[in-house]
Amino acid sequence: MHHMERRTLVTMTAIVRNQWYVAAYGREVSRELFSRTICGEPILFWRTEGGEVTAMSDRCVHRRFPLSQSPSRLVDDTVVCGYHGFTYGADGVCVAVPGQKRVPRTARLTSYSVVEQDSFVWVWIADPERPGTADPSTIPRARWLDSPDWDAVSGVEHIDCNYGLLVDNLLDLSHETYLHGGYIGTPEVAETPITTEVDDDAGIVYVSRHMDDAQCPPFYSKSTGVQGRITRWQDIEYTPPCLYLLHSRIAPVGAALPADDGTDTEAFHTEIVYAITPETEHSTHDFWCVARDFARGDDEVSTFLAENNRTVVMQDVVALDVLQKALDAEKAGYQELSINIDAGGLAARRILAAMAAPAPVPVS
Amino acid sequence: MHHMERRTLVTMTAIVRNQWYVAAYGREVSRELFSRTICGEPILFWRTEGGEVTAMSDRCVHRRFPLSQSPSRLVDDTVVCGYHGFTYGADGVCVAVPGQKRVPRTARLTSYSVVEQDSFVWVWIADPERPGTADPSTIPRARWLDSPDWDAVSGVEHIDCNYGLLVDNLLDLSHETYLHGGYIGTPEVAETPITTEVDDDAGIVYVSRHMDDAQCPPFYSKSTGVQGRITRWQDIEYTPPCLYLLHSRIAPVGAALPADDGTDTEAFHTEIVYAITPETEHSTHDFWCVARDFARGDDEVSTFLAENNRTVVMQDVVALDVLQKALDAEKAGYQELSINIDAGGLAARRILAAMAAPAPVPVS
Amino acid sequence: MHHMERRTLVTMTAIVRNQWYVAAYGREVSRELFSRTICGEPILFWRTEGGEVTAMSDRCVHRRFPLSQSPSRLVDDTVVCGYHGFTYGADGVCVAVPGQKRVPRTARLTSYSVVEQDSFVWVWIADPERPGTADPSTIPRARWLDSPDWDAVSGVEHIDCNYGLLVDNLLDLSHETYLHGGYIGTPEVAETPITTEVDDDAGIVYVSRHMDDAQCPPFYSKSTGVQGRITRWQDIEYTPPCLYLLHSRIAPVGAALPADDGTDTEAFHTEIVYAITPETEHSTHDFWCVARDFARGDDEVSTFLAENNRTVVMQDVVALDVLQKALDAEKAGYQELSINIDAGGLAARRILAAMAAPAPVPVS
Repeated sequence: MHHMERRTLVTMTAIVRNQWYVAAYGREVSRELFSRTICGEPILFWRTEGGEVTAMSDRCVHRRFPLSQSPSRLVDDTVVCGYHGFTYGADGVCVAVPGQKRVPRTARLTSYSVVEQDSFVWVWIADPERPGTADPSTIPRARWLDSPDWDAVSGVEHIDCNYGLLVDNLLDLSHETYLHGGYIGTPEVAETPITTEVDDDAGIVYVSRHMDDAQCPPFYSKSTGVQGRITRWQDIEYTPPCLYLLHSRIAPVGAALPADDGTDTEAFHTEIVYAITPETEHSTHDFWCVARDFARGDDEVSTFLAENNRTVVMQDVVALDVLQKALDAEKAGYQELSINIDAGGLAARRILAAMAAPAPVPVS
Repeated sequence: MHHMERRTLVTMTAIVRNQWYVAAYGREVSRELFSRTICGEPILFWRTEGGEVTAMSDRCVHRRFPLSQSPSRLVDDTVVCGYHGFTYGADGVCVAVPGQKRVPRTARLTSYSVVEQDSFVWVWIADPERPGTADPSTIPRARWLDSPDWDAVSGVEHIDCNYGLLVDNLLDLSHETYLHGGYIGTPEVAETPITTEVDDDAGIVYVSRHMDDAQCPPFYSKSTGVQGRITRWQDIEYTPPCLYLLHSRIAPVGAALPADDGTDTEAFHTEIVYAITPETEHSTHDFWCVARDFARGDDEVSTFLAENNRTVVMQDVVALDVLQKALDAEKAGYQELSINIDAGGLAARRILAAMAAPAPVPVS
Repeated sequence: MHHMERRTLVTMTAIVRNQWYVAAYGREVSRELFSRTICGEPILFWRTEGGEVTAMSDRCVHRRFPLSQSPSRLVDDTVVCGYHGFTYGADGVCVAVPGQKRVPRTARLTSYSVVEQDSFVWVWIADPERPGTADPSTIPRARWLDSPDWDAVSGVEHIDCNYGLLVDNLLDLSHETYLHGGYIGTPEVAETPITTEVDDDAGIVYVSRHMDDAQCPPFYSKSTGVQGRITRWQDIEYTPPCLYLLHSRIAPVGAALPADDGTDTEAFHTEIVYAITPETEHSTHDFWCVARDFARGDDEVSTFLAENNRTVVMQDVVALDVLQKALDAEKAGYQELSINIDAGGLAARRILAAMAAPAPVPVS
C-alpha cells in the first residue's frame, strides 16, 4: 500500500461563486422577515401571499438600513423599510419613497434566484466579475429529505470557522472514532482504510469505507434495534461546494448483500446529508439531516436520531470553533501533515480551489 | 417639482477640529473625577472648590495612567494619580512627584478651554496642526435649556456609530413616521415635502417642514392636551458640527398664526436640542433636550416628555448601532441613494467636509 | 542630587528568546493535560508515569488541533489527539496514526527543554533564527520557595498587558504608596529615594530603598506582630527577563543591624519573588510568591499573607489592564516622562532591548 505523507501550508479555503447554496430550510421562511448572510451577502427572505420564497438584498438602497431590522415590516407583498419607509416589491423593485411621488428609476434591491427543493431553499450566489447562469437543473439533489418513502430529521448550526474546515471534517470520517466516540464512532472507523475517487467531469469526490465486522455504535443500535456486530458501509459523495451526502448502510454480520437490482432488504439505510454554506470567509452554516428507511413513523426513533445527531454536530462545532481560533493565532507559514485518510479532503480542496480561481484566458 | 436622485459612495464623516463641543451637562461635573472621551481625546473633568469646571488630559504624564481611574483622587484643588502619586493643579501643571522635591519643568497635562453655558459644558477641541482660537463668543446658543421662561428635560446616550449617521438621522425627520411611529411620527411627516436652505456665511443648515393639517402624535397630545388635528411646524437649524435645534410649533387647526411681533399665544412651542459630539470616529455622544413654554412647572408633563423622548432617542440608538454594524461589514465601494428628503443631510455633510479639510494655502 | 527628567516615546517591550521562563508551578502539572501559552507558543505539559514533566507543542501535526482540548487524552505515557487520534510519546514523536500502520517520519511535535526547580517549571524558549543552548545551570535561583527553612505561599494571575508594564511596575515600588495604600504602601516608600545599580556582566538590575523610620503596613504588622515604627529595607534584584526578587527586611526601629557574618536575628525577612512570563506580546503570566523566615508553620499567617498579597497583585492586575487599554487607544507618537524613581525600570528596559536585538556580526 502506498502511503501519502505531505506537508502543506495551511491556507483558508476561498468562497466559490456562481454556485447554488442552501440558505435555509423551507420551514424557516414564512411571512416573518428572515435574514441570513450567505457568502458574505446579507439576504432577506420572505414568502409572498402566494407562498413563493423571495430573496433580495437585506440593505435598503437609501441609507443601507437592514430591511430585516424592526420596525421594518411586510405589508401584503411589499417590504417597508423601518427607517424612512422605502418600500419594495417581491422582485426587489422600489415602489414608494417618502416625501415625493416619483420613485427613482435605479431604486431596486439586488434580487436572488431561489429554488425550493428537497426541503431546502437554494440561492444562487453570483460572481459579479464573471456572470454565470443560475440554472436550477444543476442543483444537486437530496431527495430523501422530502420523500414519502423516507423519514427525516434535520437542523442547522453555526460554526465560527472557514467552511473549508467543515469540508475537511466531513470528508475524513476517521475522526468519528475520537471526536464522536460513544455516539457514532467505533475503533473500526479509524482502523479501516478508505478508497477515494474523484469524478473530475462531474466534479464529485467519493470516499468509501466498508467495515465487514464492526461494533454497532449507539446511534445505530438504538435506532435499528440491531444487537451484535455489523457490516457498516460509509459511502461519501461530495458535490462541491455545498452538498455532502453520506450513504450509510448497516446490517448484521452475515446478512445478505444488496441484490443486483439494488434491493437490499436485510440492511438499514440512512442518508446523512450536510449542506455546507459559507456565511462569511470566517463562519459557516452547517445544515445537517438524517433520513432513514427503517422505523418509519416511529416518533421515538425520530427524536432519538435528531438529538443524537445534533449532539454529534455540536461536538464538531466546538472542535472547529477551537481549531479556527488556534489557526488564527498561528504565526504565518505553519504547516499541516496529510496522510492516507486525507485523500478525500485534499481532493475536495483542489476542486474548490479550481472553482474559485478565475477562468483561464482562452489561447487564440 | 425637481426630484433629486443621487448615488454616492458611503464614506465616514471626519471629525472636525478647532471647534467647541458639548462634553457634558454641568450637572455631571462635580467633586468626583469624571472622564469622557471627546473627539478621541480622553478628558478629565472636575470642579474646583470654587465651583469652576476644569478640563485636562486624563492621562498622567509619567506612565499615562488614567487620572480618572481609582485610586486616583481629588485632594483640595489637585488631582493625585493613583499609580505613583504625580499631583496636578486645576491648570494641569504638576505640583508634586514621588521620591524627589524637584518637579520636572515639562510635567504638565494638556489643559482644555471650557465654558459652562446653557446647561452644557463646552470644551474646545484644538487642531494641533493648525492652531485656532478658542473664542467663547462663537459657541452657538440654546438659551431655552437654562432659562426661567422654559421648562427643560434632558439626557445623554451613547451610540456606537460615526457621528455623521446621527447628523443624517436628525436632518431628515421623515424617519419619524417609520422609526418613531406611535411616539412622534405620523404619516404627514413622511408625506410633506421639505424646504432646505444653507447659510454658507454663518455655516448653518435650515430644513423646514410645515404641515397644515396633521394628526397630533402622543408626544404632543399628552403633553399639551390638544385633541384633534393640528398645524405642525418643524424648523431645523443645524450649526455644524455640534448643535442641532428643532424649533417645533404645534397649534390646533384654525388657531391664529404668529403675530408680526413674534407673539404666538395660541400655539405650543417646544425647543428640541441635540448636541452631537464624536467620542471617537466610531462612536458618538448623543445629548438630547426638550424645552417647552407650556405646562410650566407640571412635573407630570416633565416626566412624560423625558421618558417619551428618551424612548425615541433609544429607537435611534438601536437603529444607528445596527446601521453602523451593517456599514462596517460592507464590501468597499458600496453606494447609497439620496432623494429630496436628504437635501439637508447632504448639505450638512458638505459643510462638515469643508470644515475638516485643511485650509487652502493663501496665494501671495 | 542629580534629577533625571527624560521624555521618551512609549514602545512595547519585545519578547526575548533563547531564555528560560517560568511556565508553571510544579503543582500545576499532573496526569491531566495542561496547556499554557509561553512567549506566543502554545505548550502542552504533563507528567509521565515516572513523574517527569514533559513539554511539547500543543498542536497536532496533522490538522493543528490543540492536544489539550477534550476529548484529547493521556493514555499511559502517550497523548492521543481528540480529533483523529494521532498519538505522541513523551518526547513528542508520533507513534500511531489512524488508517495505516506506518507512521510518517516527520510526524513529531516540537519538544521543549524543561527543568523543575525552586517549585517552578522552567521552559526554554528558543530563537529559531539564532539557535542557543538550553543550559539548566543558567536558570536563576529562588531557593526560598522550596526550602525547609522557609515557609512560602504563591499563586499566578493573568494580565492583559505587555510584560514590560509589569517589569516597570515591579522595578518602581513607589507605586506601593498609592496603588497599594493600606496593604503594603506607606508614605515613606514614595518619599525615600532609591539607589540603582546595574551589573552589566551578570545582567542584573539592583534597586534599593532603605527606610530608617517608617510606618509598618498591615502586610507586615499582622504577619510579624511588630507594633510601632520600623526599619524597612527593600532590595530588588531583577534578572531579566523572567525572575524578580524583592529581599525585604523589617525590624523594629532600634533593633540590631545584621552581623558581619550575615546573621540577623532581630529582623523579619521576607523573600518576595515574581516570575514575569510573556504569554503573548499583549498578555502576561504574573507568578507571585511570598517566602518568610518567621511565624514558621503558622497556617493563619500563611493564609493572611497569601490573601493579602493576592489582593495587592490584583490591584496591579486591574491597573495594568486599564493602562494597557489606555496605551492601545493612544495616537502614535505619545510620550512618557521618567524621573529618578524610574532609573531601575529604564535600566531593565535597556537590558531587555539589548537581549532581544540580533547579535552583532563579528568583525574579522
